[in-house]
Amino acid sequence: MRVVDLIRKKRDGGEHSWEEIQQIVNGYTAGTIPDYQMSAWLMAVLLRGMTPPESAALTEIMLHSGEVLDFSDLPGRKVDKHSTGGVGDKTSLVIAPMAAAAGLYVPMISGRGLGHTGGTLDKLESIPGFNVNLSLKEYRAVLKKCGCGLIGQTTEIAPADKKIYALRDVTGTVESPFLICASIMSKKLAEGIDALVLDVKTGSGAFMKKEEDAANVARLMVETGKRMGKKVVALITDMNQPLGNYVGHALEVEESVRILEGAGADDLRELCLELAGWMIYLGERATSVEEGRKIAAETIRSGAAKEKLRQIISFQGGDPGVVDDPGRLPRPRNQLEFKSATSGYVAAMQAEWIGTACVVLGGGREKKEDTIDHAAGLILHKKLGDRVQAGEPLCTVLYNSDARLDEAQELLRNAYQIQEKPPAGQRELVHQVIQ
Amino acid sequence: MRVVDLIRKKRDGGEHSWEEIQQIVNGYTAGTIPDYQMSAWLMAVLLRGMTPPESAALTEIMLHSGEVLDFSDLPGRKVDKHSTGGVGDKTSLVIAPMAAAAGLYVPMISGRGLGHTGGTLDKLESIPGFNVNLSLKEYRAVLKKCGCGLIGQTTEIAPADKKIYALRDVTGTVESPFLICASIMSKKLAEGIDALVLDVKTGSGAFMKKEEDAANVARLMVETGKRMGKKVVALITDMNQPLGNYVGHALEVEESVRILEGAGADDLRELCLELAGWMIYLGERATSVEEGRKIAAETIRSGAAKEKLRQIISFQGGDPGVVDDPGRLPRPRNQLEFKSATSGYVAAMQAEWIGTACVVLGGGREKKEDTIDHAAGLILHKKLGDRVQAGEPLCTVLYNSDARLDEAQELLRNAYQIQEKPPAGQRELVHQVIQ
Repeated sequence: MRVVDLIRKKRDGGEHSWEEIQQIVNGYTAGTIPDYQMSAWLMAVLLRGMTPPESAALTEIMLHSGEVLDFSDLPGRKVDKHSTGGVGDKTSLVIAPMAAAAGLYVPMISGRGLGHTGGTLDKLESIPGFNVNLSLKEYRAVLKKCGCGLIGQTTEIAPADKKIYALRDVTGTVESPFLICASIMSKKLAEGIDALVLDVKTGSGAFMKKEEDAANVARLMVETGKRMGKKVVALITDMNQPLGNYVGHALEVEESVRILEGAGADDLRELCLELAGWMIYLGERATSVEEGRKIAAETIRSGAAKEKLRQIISFQGGDPGVVDDPGRLPRPRNQLEFKSATSGYVAAMQAEWIGTACVVLGGGREKKEDTIDHAAGLILHKKLGDRVQAGEPLCTVLYNSDARLDEAQELLRNAYQIQEKPPAGQRELVHQVIQ
Repeated sequence: MRVVDLIRKKRDGGEHSWEEIQQIVNGYTAGTIPDYQMSAWLMAVLLRGMTPPESAALTEIMLHSGEVLDFSDLPGRKVDKHSTGGVGDKTSLVIAPMAAAAGLYVPMISGRGLGHTGGTLDKLESIPGFNVNLSLKEYRAVLKKCGCGLIGQTTEIAPADKKIYALRDVTGTVESPFLICASIMSKKLAEGIDALVLDVKTGSGAFMKKEEDAANVARLMVETGKRMGKKVVALITDMNQPLGNYVGHALEVEESVRILEGAGADDLRELCLELAGWMIYLGERATSVEEGRKIAAETIRSGAAKEKLRQIISFQGGDPGVVDDPGRLPRPRNQLEFKSATSGYVAAMQAEWIGTACVVLGGGREKKEDTIDHAAGLILHKKLGDRVQAGEPLCTVLYNSDARLDEAQELLRNAYQIQEKPPAGQRELVHQVIQ
């Protein structure tokens, strides 16, 4: 069929065959279908949706557009975790060493910062010397030796996704659950994993602000993974405020180490134990999630997870000394206290604006080419429900360049909502579990 | 606003401001917005629709992307007719000289053949020497001297439409009523006309097969034209069979001359009188459509319209001798009778397939670069409701190359439906008049 007729078919609500989706995805990846036809088709998919067989075909064809890693020679379950992205979300840095310390293999291929959210690769690069650009051969060696490797998407992994994602980003076609599912799952399933824990964020700092949208994508990803013989669970988790108290690249590495030392923010620790517990359970090192959580907690108590982090850093060329001396991480020259204008309780936090404040301070990219100031960021002193006095700091702003400091403060001013009475109800960290 | 945010706005059903549509159309025409963003926006427009103010803005901005002709110095009303395209539709060749003979100025900018339909420019080019590529200066001179000029879209006229149309053609975004309206009306309003008669086809040979879709586009075009101070009427006319009995370029010129001689097929003559009657009425040479029709008929009876056709051909460099001697038009080397396999009545004709048969014989383009065999075509002997005996010819196939003769015959076999009893009901040529 001509490509224009395939576009018309989807536009009119038709269902594509496997071969039709193959023609589109492979044609686009190979460059025989031009960007302008692909973007029209993507918009038609976003507005018309896909059936389960179409969604499955899209993911599998994108997965097989590149190399699918095979770690079956490694003696143990391969388990990964993926988050849809939030503010202050440094769980990968905590649970990858925890799960590896518990005896799992964690072949984690991560991304860069996107919009107002930070990326795992960028955070790792705040560790002096850390190399996220291992070849697949080096990656395999690191994984074998220490049970965990943390790298970026290589040209061999799901090249179709790489090309399609870049187009979606500039054509208003990011938000389709079918396209999100295919993008995430094609990359994750290419990692050669047996099981996957998905952390799907919802709330003011998430890409999917409505819980219904988050759950919709989560269900689609769980179904897709299961159909391909993987154990998959999705946790819909709260992103109505930043996770933990530190936002910024080096700061988040520091906070991750604190969690591995048994200290740090309660919400961050709780979510890490939950996610690691699920990884350990799905990776068959525990007979229940509860047991998985206990094993995860034990990797902290014993110091095994912290030692595993030192190993990972060392194997990937970084300075493992940062684990015991955070002073070896990049530090900002300046800081200021961002104070509350009124007294009361923190009733709401626009996590997206807090994340954007960090970007504006230099701790994020606005264009792909931008460089990152790993030292810039925020330390939060008050979170949802906390009492604050007028003049008391809500957070500390850490920065090198004051070029856009005013803009960052304006964002923070708008992000916090202070009210007289304590906000009603308690927020659950995990809203839903989808299996 | 960033272009990607404009795409997202339309995708989510939002309404664009005038300035936003200007940013998109002018940016695309200037080349600062790439094809892949434009096609995503066009698909979003097709699936989400437009409000009346958006539709008006789109048409006007596209109109003003190029030169808007001004013929106000010519002493008389400037009136044009536009057809959405059908099979055997040669009305432009008949009514342009009729309306000019009745004292109107007819500045007609026409198109090439599209898909299964023939184009006025291609038909005119079957006349030896006829030049449709006049400069705007030459065009103005011809119009002034003989009251009618027939040319193709120049680079000066609605360049935004030219670029957008080429993209729509390959991205499945042709069928939007809003985009169709903007495309047609931006070109027609650039002609410097006072009034416009729209012939919107519906049926098996039309682009809009459903009458509802045709009426929808028609209403939009009439509203748009009126809002810009023009007199506009749209006739929804029948395209469930080819118009007249001749299909093919030189053949259609010949049939047009026959109508101007008072002979020819009844349906074609009737529609020409109707359309010309409306032109004469809207051009204020008659106080009613009925009177307009009478004046139109008189231009035939008196020979004035036929003489006007000779003049137009002559002024545009063609051989006016073809008007009196059709033997000077290109003639095919071969012909065969396409016979009915059974006896009965013609109950249905798939006009699209009959048009495609003509294309396959060489009398049309499948790719833009294809050359046309002006001599190829069909002479229809039977039309809807006609009685036919087994073995009696349904049509004569005229051709030079027999490379795809079998394919053409297969199309014809599928196009005619013969049944025992005469088909019920009578088809009206004009289904609706929208003012």
